[in-house]
Amino acid sequence: MPLLSIKDLHEAAVRIAPFARQTPVMTSRRIDEWLGCEAFFKCENLQRTGAFKFRGACNAVFSLEDEEAARGVVTHSSGNHGAALAEAARLRGIAAYVVMPANAPPVKRAAVLEYGGIVTECLPTLQAREEAAARIIAETGATLIHPYNDWRIIAGQATAAAELHAEIPDLDVVICPVGGGGLAAGTALATHFLAPACRVVLGEPQAVNDAWQSLQQGRIVPVQAGTTIADGLRTSLGELTFPVLRDHVEQIVTVSEAEIVTALRMLWTRMKLLVEPSSAVAAAAASRARSRLEARRVGIIVSGGNVDLDHLPWTPSSARTGP
Amino acid sequence: MPLLSIKDLHEAAVRIAPFARQTPVMTSRRIDEWLGCEAFFKCENLQRTGAFKFRGACNAVFSLEDEEAARGVVTHSSGNHGAALAEAARLRGIAAYVVMPANAPPVKRAAVLEYGGIVTECLPTLQAREEAAARIIAETGATLIHPYNDWRIIAGQATAAAELHAEIPDLDVVICPVGGGGLAAGTALATHFLAPACRVVLGEPQAVNDAWQSLQQGRIVPVQAGTTIADGLRTSLGELTFPVLRDHVEQIVTVSEAEIVTALRMLWTRMKLLVEPSSAVAAAAASRARSRLEARRVGIIVSGGNVDLDHLPWTPSSARTGP
Repeated sequence: MPLLSIKDLHEAAVRIAPFARQTPVMTSRRIDEWLGCEAFFKCENLQRTGAFKFRGACNAVFSLEDEEAARGVVTHSSGNHGAALAEAARLRGIAAYVVMPANAPPVKRAAVLEYGGIVTECLPTLQAREEAAARIIAETGATLIHPYNDWRIIAGQATAAAELHAEIPDLDVVICPVGGGGLAAGTALATHFLAPACRVVLGEPQAVNDAWQSLQQGRIVPVQAGTTIADGLRTSLGELTFPVLRDHVEQIVTVSEAEIVTALRMLWTRMKLLVEPSSAVAAAAASRARSRLEARRVGIIVSGGNVDLDHLPWTPSSARTGP
Repeated sequence: MPLLSIKDLHEAAVRIAPFARQTPVMTSRRIDEWLGCEAFFKCENLQRTGAFKFRGACNAVFSLEDEEAARGVVTHSSGNHGAALAEAARLRGIAAYVVMPANAPPVKRAAVLEYGGIVTECLPTLQAREEAAARIIAETGATLIHPYNDWRIIAGQATAAAELHAEIPDLDVVICPVGGGGLAAGTALATHFLAPACRVVLGEPQAVNDAWQSLQQGRIVPVQAGTTIADGLRTSLGELTFPVLRDHVEQIVTVSEAEIVTALRMLWTRMKLLVEPSSAVAAAAASRARSRLEARRVGIIVSGGNVDLDHLPWTPSSARTGP
């Protein structure tokens, strides 16, 4: 059973309230026509640092005792968690050490630096990342904050679904994307506690369907090599997140790259929301499973909006200079 | 003096309330750092049909007497007004005839058709457009709804600024883009009536600075040939809008194409809002005039979010398939 109670979830909500945004829930008639249901989008792309990751990072950083916090926090993440941890640490006035592979996109490194993070480059291997983090911990005494396999992180991520259920109390289904499972486990637990009649469905790219395989096989199947534009989801489940998903998720819907791009463009053009491909995975899952879900009111967690505008998943694009 | 009273403005607000969205006002700490002020963005990109234009079109369509309305409405617009009029007419259950030049972008024609508009193609000249509209009026008895030179339209557009002032009552300056001047005149009048201490500033592309020239010369200077990515602003002021701007606008700030693109990318990446280049013109004006404005609290009307994703104003873009 998860070591996370409704009390932990409530404490996380109180802890991050001074810092995190209570993001809006948005709807669109045209999106509803597309999906064939009433869809409620919880807009974590409008969260601080542009992703739900700030919730977990903020809860973890502000859970630390003063003495512990003073030595800083460390993580290895090339994505939104690194930026979120840097911002949470900045707000607490402590150091955030972020280990990033040397081949991480410049835009991601820039984000971490902009929030005041201290970036350490390493070779792009798991071993090199872990060694770099261990070295920083040995030198500074900083606390490791894992991107998802940490109850403080999961409790923080759970606050997004908690807010959604509070605002839209009668959802039939809530859908979010799954990567390492921090958001998914948080969403599943918040729904279990706060809206037990609501089912939990996850969206995952077919190209990296390790979470789907894991639920099928009843054990953690590591993510295979695979390319997807939903780059935030190329992560294996963790020991804490897997059992939560096994116990509280109804199904995982896998979607193709083409379906992700279609959903991405729908959210951009119909809702005018800049969302990242990982977020479109949840909408794509809602579209693919529309008949199967038999759901009238569907909550969708829009996980983030950090997009590299110079590398959009469609071509061609050209400067527009005339009518 | 304008033939528009605060009573007209109030009636427009009541008339469109069942149909138009009361759009959110959004803020961003990082945008504030960029602009050096507290900026409040009135998000008309989240308005029905993706632009403020729905407000004016809706007010005009629902201002008609039943008998008049039954014969339909007609306009010539290749842009957001055509789509907005089609949607407003659909809501009233009447026909909307939209005359569009044959070379209009397919995405614009698709939008008008999607909202149920009846599209008539014509040659891309003013004369051809007016002849086509006149022929439709002769055949159907439809009422011409001009995109901006119409008090019903101006009163409708004014409701955006009215909502902004109601929500953020102590703005020092409000900034919006200017094309034909419907939004600008509406914003100026709403501000004059509801927040008289607040100054009104307009943003305009340098490439089509006819409004700036018009205020300089004290007469309507027609828009010159010029290319700008803010394609919604390539329009001359009208006989109704010009005197309002002359009497109630403090200054027009012109901005370069590069400044528009910079502002566009800032709004997309920092605020996660999909806005169209015309909207970025207002933010670019706020950035350019930051010292001159000496304003602490600045309202910015985000005019719309209808963007052709296949023709973005930056290059290169390529499919992103790996880390």
